[in-house]
Amino acid sequence: MAQTFISMRNLKFMLYEMFDVESLTTYPYFADHSREVFDMVLDTGMRMGKDILFPVFAEMDKQQPEFTGTTVKVHPVVETVMKACGEGGWIGAHAPYEFGGQQIPMSVMTAFRGIFSAANYSACVYPFLTTGAAHLVMSFGSQELIDAYVPKMFAGQWQGTMALTEPQAGSSLTDVSTTAFPADDGYYTLKGQKIFISCAEYDSIENVVNLMIARIEGAPQGIRGISLFVVPNKRLNEEGELVSNDVSCSGIYHKLGYRGAPITQLSLGENDDCRGWLVGEPHKGIRYMFQMMNEARIDVGMGAAAIASAAYYAALEYTRERPQGRKITSKDPAEPQIPIIEHADVKRMLLFQRAIVEGAFSLIFQCSKYTDLITVLEEGEEKEKYELLLEILTPIAKTYPSEMGILSCSQGLQCLGGYGYCDEFPLEQYYRDVRIHPIHEGTTGIQGMDLLGRKMVMKDGKALFLYLAEVEKTIAGAKSIDELAPYAEKLQESLESLKEVAQGLTELALKGEIEIFLADATLFLEFFGIIAIAWQWLLQALTAHEALAGASEGAEADFYRGKLHTFRYFFEYELPKIQGLAVRLKNSGDGLTVSMRPEYFSE
Amino acid sequence: MAQTFISMRNLKFMLYEMFDVESLTTYPYFADHSREVFDMVLDTGMRMGKDILFPVFAEMDKQQPEFTGTTVKVHPVVETVMKACGEGGWIGAHAPYEFGGQQIPMSVMTAFRGIFSAANYSACVYPFLTTGAAHLVMSFGSQELIDAYVPKMFAGQWQGTMALTEPQAGSSLTDVSTTAFPADDGYYTLKGQKIFISCAEYDSIENVVNLMIARIEGAPQGIRGISLFVVPNKRLNEEGELVSNDVSCSGIYHKLGYRGAPITQLSLGENDDCRGWLVGEPHKGIRYMFQMMNEARIDVGMGAAAIASAAYYAALEYTRERPQGRKITSKDPAEPQIPIIEHADVKRMLLFQRAIVEGAFSLIFQCSKYTDLITVLEEGEEKEKYELLLEILTPIAKTYPSEMGILSCSQGLQCLGGYGYCDEFPLEQYYRDVRIHPIHEGTTGIQGMDLLGRKMVMKDGKALFLYLAEVEKTIAGAKSIDELAPYAEKLQESLESLKEVAQGLTELALKGEIEIFLADATLFLEFFGIIAIAWQWLLQALTAHEALAGASEGAEADFYRGKLHTFRYFFEYELPKIQGLAVRLKNSGDGLTVSMRPEYFSE
Repeated sequence: MAQTFISMRNLKFMLYEMFDVESLTTYPYFADHSREVFDMVLDTGMRMGKDILFPVFAEMDKQQPEFTGTTVKVHPVVETVMKACGEGGWIGAHAPYEFGGQQIPMSVMTAFRGIFSAANYSACVYPFLTTGAAHLVMSFGSQELIDAYVPKMFAGQWQGTMALTEPQAGSSLTDVSTTAFPADDGYYTLKGQKIFISCAEYDSIENVVNLMIARIEGAPQGIRGISLFVVPNKRLNEEGELVSNDVSCSGIYHKLGYRGAPITQLSLGENDDCRGWLVGEPHKGIRYMFQMMNEARIDVGMGAAAIASAAYYAALEYTRERPQGRKITSKDPAEPQIPIIEHADVKRMLLFQRAIVEGAFSLIFQCSKYTDLITVLEEGEEKEKYELLLEILTPIAKTYPSEMGILSCSQGLQCLGGYGYCDEFPLEQYYRDVRIHPIHEGTTGIQGMDLLGRKMVMKDGKALFLYLAEVEKTIAGAKSIDELAPYAEKLQESLESLKEVAQGLTELALKGEIEIFLADATLFLEFFGIIAIAWQWLLQALTAHEALAGASEGAEADFYRGKLHTFRYFFEYELPKIQGLAVRLKNSGDGLTVSMRPEYFSE
Repeated sequence: MAQTFISMRNLKFMLYEMFDVESLTTYPYFADHSREVFDMVLDTGMRMGKDILFPVFAEMDKQQPEFTGTTVKVHPVVETVMKACGEGGWIGAHAPYEFGGQQIPMSVMTAFRGIFSAANYSACVYPFLTTGAAHLVMSFGSQELIDAYVPKMFAGQWQGTMALTEPQAGSSLTDVSTTAFPADDGYYTLKGQKIFISCAEYDSIENVVNLMIARIEGAPQGIRGISLFVVPNKRLNEEGELVSNDVSCSGIYHKLGYRGAPITQLSLGENDDCRGWLVGEPHKGIRYMFQMMNEARIDVGMGAAAIASAAYYAALEYTRERPQGRKITSKDPAEPQIPIIEHADVKRMLLFQRAIVEGAFSLIFQCSKYTDLITVLEEGEEKEKYELLLEILTPIAKTYPSEMGILSCSQGLQCLGGYGYCDEFPLEQYYRDVRIHPIHEGTTGIQGMDLLGRKMVMKDGKALFLYLAEVEKTIAGAKSIDELAPYAEKLQESLESLKEVAQGLTELALKGEIEIFLADATLFLEFFGIIAIAWQWLLQALTAHEALAGASEGAEADFYRGKLHTFRYFFEYELPKIQGLAVRLKNSGDGLTVSMRPEYFSE
């Protein structure tokens, strides 16, 4: 089995060479840190990934979680992972000191999570779901709630979850019906059902803390009547002992992939004794949840990119070792066979994967850098700029890696031919695992509507204008370098196409044709996404071009040359895909899907 | 679970309305048949599909074949399927009367196989692999071989296989090393290893007949030294009893999907007692095998399209029944939720699937019609025309359904959201099953080289010219109809683009830049494929447009309107994808993948 699942060299290229994460240490908030600290974080992540997570990657898939009737038996490594992450301080590493965190920049922790996700996606969700849930409590909960839950969660003793979905309310959170009845002592009594909740019950953890949305009895209908609660599986009684909180797991789903993490069904209050504690104010649950969801969406993007990374390195190793066929120019059967990496079509498949993986990583680190800058900047124009850039790029950072990650893993599988289809090699598992990402944390369709229906139009299009300005800055930089100028030109043309398409769609919206305006939102997301990744590849090329000038021959020079070659691949093979999308998007006004009547889908 | 896996209405639309298969009965070869006979074939296929195959679709996946150490335990339905297909005459139905067949047209049997494949792909390969293997014996074997094997195979008593691949020889058949040593009595003694052989050993069959390629001792190196043999797992001894032929199964693979059919490893001649009988002349094995392989390739296309069909109907049923969300124009949470089929993005996903499935079916039936015409026509220009059209379209008919079938099943899965990822619904299995098709019977990369490197240039491009003429005929017909004329125009433009791209690539070949010429062959295949399917959609639209004029309201009119809407979808959403591909293909001369050096793929 391949030993590389993610490239440390590439992570450092992005963190230090592209995004200069070291410069964050000039802000007081990060002043305690240094490049050495960041390296230590990365090295520890890689060591844990190699020693703990990666060795059980296939085993966790084969020994799926088992529902015992009351709890879920998970792989023993889960206990090890939660303990190691808790003891090492990795669950709360990004959090402020005051909450017990270490104020490690998001950029660095994103790399850390990327390493974990590439090593074993199922195993990594346990600690990082806990991070997200704790973050919600920290951000909006009372001091009492924070004190009661956050330290246990950061220590890896208690698992955190996000409990949103119900049988009748998946994409439509408006329809959440779990009800919270006000009770004495500041708590609420909950009753309802939740489904598809990751890691909400398992045997090797002391307690689970569900960050759950529900409707306070009598609350307004719809999204404005949803509140956020902490609903632990066990609560402390007056003696300080953990006792049942009437949250029962009624089953788990058997999934295509991502099998190491149980996805549970929960029943709340079967015995009318399920208590929840309100987080923040009533009826603001969706707003709170969305803060976590935006982070979670970028995390999903990282998960997908990381799985695609692991698939890419597994495919790469195979193609270097597998002899098959000969050069087209020398078909002499007496010659020995050559490694398949020497065939142009195999190189094309590898370039495709690398272009997706490193393009996606780059956009994700771009978003993390914005997050870090938002953390350290005072309120003001600059901070707002990064907030808006993050808003508009979040649906892309979630969706591009998720959708393209599927194709990337599929190409990885293809590199192995028949062996790719067999479980002796990990590709078939990556292909299954990665398929979750366009579904969870908001499907691709939801992301498309978020981008086109909200982010493009928010503040009169300010996010879009800021984004265009950022890309144009990169273009201007590249135009001054002969080797990159033609690509800068292509990106410029793509931006013009983006503006034209956006203009046409906006006119539909202004005419009040809202359904038609949004009908091709998913295509618009794809279109926008390809251009965003092209921008990131041009940024990478700028960095690599400069570095190559100073690099001698050898591995370093090969790395930069590989970067530049993959960059050209993206512009030659991937960026042109926007042309077909633009043709359609300029014609969206025909409302073709809107006018398709359900009865026309007769047999 | 959905009850529809393929649409009989659509099959009849294609067979009778589009391709007028009934007209074949005017040829003496098919004169015994009639529309009633064809309908009976289809109805029987559908009944067997619904009663025997479909009910065990999920079960065969979960109860995978098990290797016992000597044989493979398969699902009990396999015995039923082989018996029913043998007794019903379905294994040999297409074969000439003289071999015990029924001379049913390929077009009709392709529909029959499509029904089986959609009902349960794993189960259908047992009988239809047998058909293909028997066809090889019939076509090239001696009368003795035919008498000894074909009747048993047609009766479903003996399983047929194609045994090509070896550990060191997958895509590169040149490197086959299994050796055949001439012995007495006209047989050869075989020694070697085969891998990835479908259905070559299982418990519920009396015997397996492997059509195997091997190298006669002392044969020339390479492809010109490969011969074809019949190598049964058991042979008849002098007493007429079946005894071991020293073919032993050494294991099976555990696969991502398509799990109901075992893929075996075979050892030949471990005890120096494995006998094979030469089929046809020595050293012509690859030529013989390719006849079967071309048929098998179209079958693979049908398998992929059929799986995508079943996935589409499962998704369709779900989207009709699942309430979620409200119209964008009425977000009132007091309103009841609507079935998700009413959301534009869901309709887009369904249209995508239908466009792929019915576009692929159409091309496959086009190929089958050519096959039937080749069967009945005398040698001459017309026959050669259909042979060449079949040659050039075979890589497309294999690859377009296989590659797009993956995306189609993936969109089907996406329609179900989280449920699509769970095994309570069949989508996740379709997504796994369909992934085999770009791999077996020649990978997509191999198909691309076949199209660009062989089919485009054969007979000075005659196949291409004949193809262009066929498409132009369709365009001319559509131009005279106001509603279709704009689409005919778009297809015309696509053909111009195809000619331009082909011209540019040919110039690379003429310059002797063979590696660069073929480097983007896979993209060329994709490009050509989209245009071929657009052609088929225009043909469908012509038929539907005419029929709609005569159809009253109701289900029939809805069917034709659905066809026309899906046709427009293809032209608006799918056909524009050629633009990005054309951009790249016109720039193939840069040799981007060829110049990527393996060492640049450093970590």
